[in-house]
Amino acid sequence: MIPVVKTIDEIREYVNKWHKEGLSVGLVPTMGYLHEGHKSLIDRAVSENDRVVVSDFVNPTQFGPNEDLEAYPRDIERDAALCESAGAAVVFNPEPEEMYDNALTTVSVDKITKVLCGKTRPVHFAGVCTVVSKLFNIVKPDRAYFGQKDAQQLIVVKKMVKDLNFDIEIVGCPIVREADGLAKSSRNTYLNAEERKAALCLSRGLSAGRKLIENGERSAEAVKNVVRGEIEKEQLAKIDYVEAVNAETLDNAETAEAPLLVAVAVYIGKTRLIDNFIVE
Amino acid sequence: MIPVVKTIDEIREYVNKWHKEGLSVGLVPTMGYLHEGHKSLIDRAVSENDRVVVSDFVNPTQFGPNEDLEAYPRDIERDAALCESAGAAVVFNPEPEEMYDNALTTVSVDKITKVLCGKTRPVHFAGVCTVVSKLFNIVKPDRAYFGQKDAQQLIVVKKMVKDLNFDIEIVGCPIVREADGLAKSSRNTYLNAEERKAALCLSRGLSAGRKLIENGERSAEAVKNVVRGEIEKEQLAKIDYVEAVNAETLDNAETAEAPLLVAVAVYIGKTRLIDNFIVE
Repeated sequence: MIPVVKTIDEIREYVNKWHKEGLSVGLVPTMGYLHEGHKSLIDRAVSENDRVVVSDFVNPTQFGPNEDLEAYPRDIERDAALCESAGAAVVFNPEPEEMYDNALTTVSVDKITKVLCGKTRPVHFAGVCTVVSKLFNIVKPDRAYFGQKDAQQLIVVKKMVKDLNFDIEIVGCPIVREADGLAKSSRNTYLNAEERKAALCLSRGLSAGRKLIENGERSAEAVKNVVRGEIEKEQLAKIDYVEAVNAETLDNAETAEAPLLVAVAVYIGKTRLIDNFIVE
Repeated sequence: MIPVVKTIDEIREYVNKWHKEGLSVGLVPTMGYLHEGHKSLIDRAVSENDRVVVSDFVNPTQFGPNEDLEAYPRDIERDAALCESAGAAVVFNPEPEEMYDNALTTVSVDKITKVLCGKTRPVHFAGVCTVVSKLFNIVKPDRAYFGQKDAQQLIVVKKMVKDLNFDIEIVGCPIVREADGLAKSSRNTYLNAEERKAALCLSRGLSAGRKLIENGERSAEAVKNVVRGEIEKEQLAKIDYVEAVNAETLDNAETAEAPLLVAVAVYIGKTRLIDNFIVE
């Protein structure tokens, strides 16, 4: 059975041994409750590294005071089985006290964390950057894998890695979707049957926007209007944002030109879902 | 002649080669204009590591808008000669543009950066922590050496290393003083003859405070009063702070008990000098 280690000292023993042996190490940072999206990251990591560490940690510091920290689904045994079958070497599953022992240090990225999800989640990205920095220093991976579904997170982590000179390759992996188009997310488990159907408005809206661009539309405003219009047809949906931005700077895009990120955040009932597409 | 490298890629070539060869690496981060205090750090690093990198970088982000960034003394040729004679392997001397290329990322430590020097230098420690994080990720040292003269900096860096799980040993080294007691500092070069004499009030005040404790004084207030009184006798001196704090938490100390840090910051003319002693 794959080892599930709880302490920083233990995971360091594994990775330091591998580093001494000259083996390459891949890291897949997750909040657990793994689905096929995570599995695609682990598969990619296994194919590119000698050893793969999956961190499985619901990081409290990236949740705001009124967010779903307590409700966030957890199932470490199922997670460990998935990691093992995908070929990972070890799961790192610390408790919050192991990670934050009277910690006072924060890693934050300015500007690109103030837009999109950062507007309604002001502490989120500092929490992400801090825990990812910690995981990088604990595991010292050669490569780390992040899903394109959290597009802003991927962009912020890449910027942090560049700014702080982490010697780590950040690999972004495509969104994995259910058969009907809904982007895979651990939070999909919050949806009841009616909401599950309603949640399709995100991918439907984004598909409509993407089609418009493929058909030659150049106005970012027109693209956003089509996405927004499609989502607004759904009665259970409440839009947080529909944005079209430069996929590197996250500045608002005037024209629908590469590199373009079209991203949405939508409440379906009480569940906040995100989705996006990128034009490269 | 010791190599003085200007780019991150170049210094990485050196250290990555050493790491592959299994050599240990020590880092001495400095702002250059090296004196015997720095030399004591390099000596210690050379004695404990196979290879020593001295970084020589006047880091703009740790200076406030009205501080002495422009005036700060620089002499890379003399520095390189000192590093070579002390047995360092390479000097890393980047330009600010090489270190900060539209950077948006900051590493900050809360609470212990708000007291002592942090009160009058609100951006200083975030600048220090960010550049030190970068240097750690670039050089990946086994050990890094900091002077006890910047006592708060040493404490903040140790806290950051613990919180972010850097796998680096932080070594603090004793204050090196001139024959008459003045703590060595690159900023001593700002002092004219009269100010140079006046600057002795810092070490004189601290000595008086230390003696009081050795003689059994237990009130931190009494110790501070003696230090303050001694400094106030000097007409050219303007006290920024005289503090007695817990040497780990930097909380105000009521009693003069170990671990105790007694620290002062004093303007001598326009030059701000710091000094301290620790009771362990």
